[in-house]
Amino acid sequence: MSYGKTFPLLKAKHKTNWDDYTKHDFVLKLANNSLEQKVFLNYLIQDYLFLIQFSKAWSLAILKSDHLNEMKVAANTVNGLMNFEMDLHINLCKSYGISKNDLENANEANENIAYTRYVLETGYSGDFLDLLAALAPCVLGYGEIGLNNISAKPKTIMYQKWIDTYSSNEYQEMCVEVSKLIDDAISIRLGDNFIKSYKWKKINKIFKTATLLEVSFWNMFIKKI
Amino acid sequence: MSYGKTFPLLKAKHKTNWDDYTKHDFVLKLANNSLEQKVFLNYLIQDYLFLIQFSKAWSLAILKSDHLNEMKVAANTVNGLMNFEMDLHINLCKSYGISKNDLENANEANENIAYTRYVLETGYSGDFLDLLAALAPCVLGYGEIGLNNISAKPKTIMYQKWIDTYSSNEYQEMCVEVSKLIDDAISIRLGDNFIKSYKWKKINKIFKTATLLEVSFWNMFIKKI
Amino acid sequence: MSYGKTFPLLKAKHKTNWDDYTKHDFVLKLANNSLEQKVFLNYLIQDYLFLIQFSKAWSLAILKSDHLNEMKVAANTVNGLMNFEMDLHINLCKSYGISKNDLENANEANENIAYTRYVLETGYSGDFLDLLAALAPCVLGYGEIGLNNISAKPKTIMYQKWIDTYSSNEYQEMCVEVSKLIDDAISIRLGDNFIKSYKWKKINKIFKTATLLEVSFWNMFIKKI
Amino acid sequence: MSYGKTFPLLKAKHKTNWDDYTKHDFVLKLANNSLEQKVFLNYLIQDYLFLIQFSKAWSLAILKSDHLNEMKVAANTVNGLMNFEMDLHINLCKSYGISKNDLENANEANENIAYTRYVLETGYSGDFLDLLAALAPCVLGYGEIGLNNISAKPKTIMYQKWIDTYSSNEYQEMCVEVSKLIDDAISIRLGDNFIKSYKWKKINKIFKTATLLEVSFWNMFIKKI
Repeated sequence: MSYGKTFPLLKAKHKTNWDDYTKHDFVLKLANNSLEQKVFLNYLIQDYLFLIQFSKAWSLAILKSDHLNEMKVAANTVNGLMNFEMDLHINLCKSYGISKNDLENANEANENIAYTRYVLETGYSGDFLDLLAALAPCVLGYGEIGLNNISAKPKTIMYQKWIDTYSSNEYQEMCVEVSKLIDDAISIRLGDNFIKSYKWKKINKIFKTATLLEVSFWNMFIKKI
Repeated sequence: MSYGKTFPLLKAKHKTNWDDYTKHDFVLKLANNSLEQKVFLNYLIQDYLFLIQFSKAWSLAILKSDHLNEMKVAANTVNGLMNFEMDLHINLCKSYGISKNDLENANEANENIAYTRYVLETGYSGDFLDLLAALAPCVLGYGEIGLNNISAKPKTIMYQKWIDTYSSNEYQEMCVEVSKLIDDAISIRLGDNFIKSYKWKKINKIFKTATLLEVSFWNMFIKKI
Repeated sequence: MSYGKTFPLLKAKHKTNWDDYTKHDFVLKLANNSLEQKVFLNYLIQDYLFLIQFSKAWSLAILKSDHLNEMKVAANTVNGLMNFEMDLHINLCKSYGISKNDLENANEANENIAYTRYVLETGYSGDFLDLLAALAPCVLGYGEIGLNNISAKPKTIMYQKWIDTYSSNEYQEMCVEVSKLIDDAISIRLGDNFIKSYKWKKINKIFKTATLLEVSFWNMFIKKI
Repeated sequence: MSYGKTFPLLKAKHKTNWDDYTKHDFVLKLANNSLEQKVFLNYLIQDYLFLIQFSKAWSLAILKSDHLNEMKVAANTVNGLMNFEMDLHINLCKSYGISKNDLENANEANENIAYTRYVLETGYSGDFLDLLAALAPCVLGYGEIGLNNISAKPKTIMYQKWIDTYSSNEYQEMCVEVSKLIDDAISIRLGDNFIKSYKWKKINKIFKTATLLEVSFWNMFIKKI
């Protein structure tokens, strides 16, 4: 399993932050079945609100690209999110006793607002690469978390399902596609020597900030001790 | 066939401009088979470039709405445009001797830029209703042109196909869906008494400007005498 | 001293949140001189980074308005922020031992990002009124905090100066001007009966969220017990 | 008189388009006093509407930059436009019998919309360099036209004044400042070898399109024979 060439560079450069995010207590406790269910249900509610903003961020990617193939990948992602993921999520929540009404009337937590609005504003004020750098930690981080915990077998069904979702072939293929989107987008715009470019510094800064905002998102549910 | 409640009001208020657009010589000549084929092929090229910006405008609609059902209609439209219309258009052009390469290397005409960038900028600087007002003349105008010319039987196959496309049930259903989107969006935001609102004036101004930019778009191919 | 008609309505409707913000321990401790200076210096650094994004938000207001007088008020604010406030802030920090270099290399805290990007994204995705609703808690909240503490006489000079700044005639006049901007902008767009409008609900939601993000901003420096 | 390093490269690469714009019949006739006054007055009205959108475009530049010195140049330009140029323009028009009311109720011509919305949309969807590339033909083109015609002495006072404005030291200094802004912005982001970059191609495309839209703007008043 490989997430392209660019992402491993970003991950390696921000290893501590990346581990704080992908090996966060929320994830570890979910995997070893010690996470409180109430906490997970709160997470599901915030994740629903997150998906709405996330769909907007991928819509923004369509506006930010001049390349039809890039626009199509983004459009497919928007379509997948709006017409499949959202409904799946609503049904999942329903099966755990959270009604559609509960979801729609829930308040976005500050930490949720922080990450999603950072991504969107980065896209609005910046360009296509800036936006991808802000989106990458979410898309690929969840993919990595899925793979990291593929052999964990938490007894709580909803935890197992969560791991199954992000370790599934379907989700992993999407990660590969997004990794390729990032690699190609950088290659076209910055060439092979991109590491020395000004833009690469900015991409790193955005990737790091977005990763820290993901950590803060998990912290909302369970504080590191 | 009905395009909702709002659109007929807008159309009636700007009847002269609307007729200049929907009964433009380009359309009349196409319907009576007197349009030069060279002119039509140029139109197809510009229309391809138009579709790209149009997909972006519908993506922007996703960003501008806070209502999941509105976002879904917009997402479906983006998906339809990016993953079906674009390819249909490319194949159509190919069958008339315009290669994909020709399309990708064509220059956007100023009149094309004028309309598409007006729509996009109206969306960026304005809100969801502003954007819909700028999109309406295109979506619903083509639907109306399709219906107006449903009994025209131009001998040139590509003209007949063009009329078939926009008078088809599929396109007409999309027009009905977009009309309902507009009606509901206005009803939610402005209430039943919207005609007296400040916003209604702005919507009218945008609708009129967008219609004039459509006229200018046709003028590019064939000047009114 | 009056901050217009709209703001008092918003404040009254979200009184608990508003008090959590304007009577936050950070403010109370600053006023009674019990705030740790180290904490205040950290605040100054974050406030510098805040001012940059705040200038951007007022620039966005220029893009979101179609009224020349509104655009001028926003342009004056941008000019005041970029060409006076920023330099004042840099000099103030310098006098407390924080160099310009320190400021420029400081990292934005997540809570800072949360509020500023929320404001900006609200402006980008929404309209002029949405943006003003997100800006109001900051502009007018600081004005109110200045007035609330006008008779506090903290011994620490930098605390006294801070109170002096926000209770000054100059700052208060700006608050009055912004209040009038909000009142007039609402009156033009929503009429006198705005309380019943859909938009008023949205404005309230934004105002509340922005206020909560201000609370979270103070919390970063000193947690409520 | 030198407009930096980048602009001469762009100008040289698009020489025919650039000459079509800066040596347009509108300009030549104004300089040799053969321009109809009615035509010039129409131009002044459209130019007023243009200035409003132009102020917005410079406001957008503030949002698109992460460098305080760049943001300050843009903020100064917005301030100059909104608080000085606009009033000068209004007074100028008044002295020629065009009231403020006439200006405010004038309709933007399609060609005016085309250029201004192209600039704004380029900024919204692109980045700081894209926006500067779209703004450059206007700012620096007028400066060059001013210099080109500095020894023309049209008898019509309003034509002479127009030339005086754009050949004035004040305007020329602004051109030098904007040229430096462009040079430095490119140098920081793309380095010295920028000519080989992908971005340089995009900048060229935008510069060319914006120049053609300027030609189209003049064409609105007087067609090339």
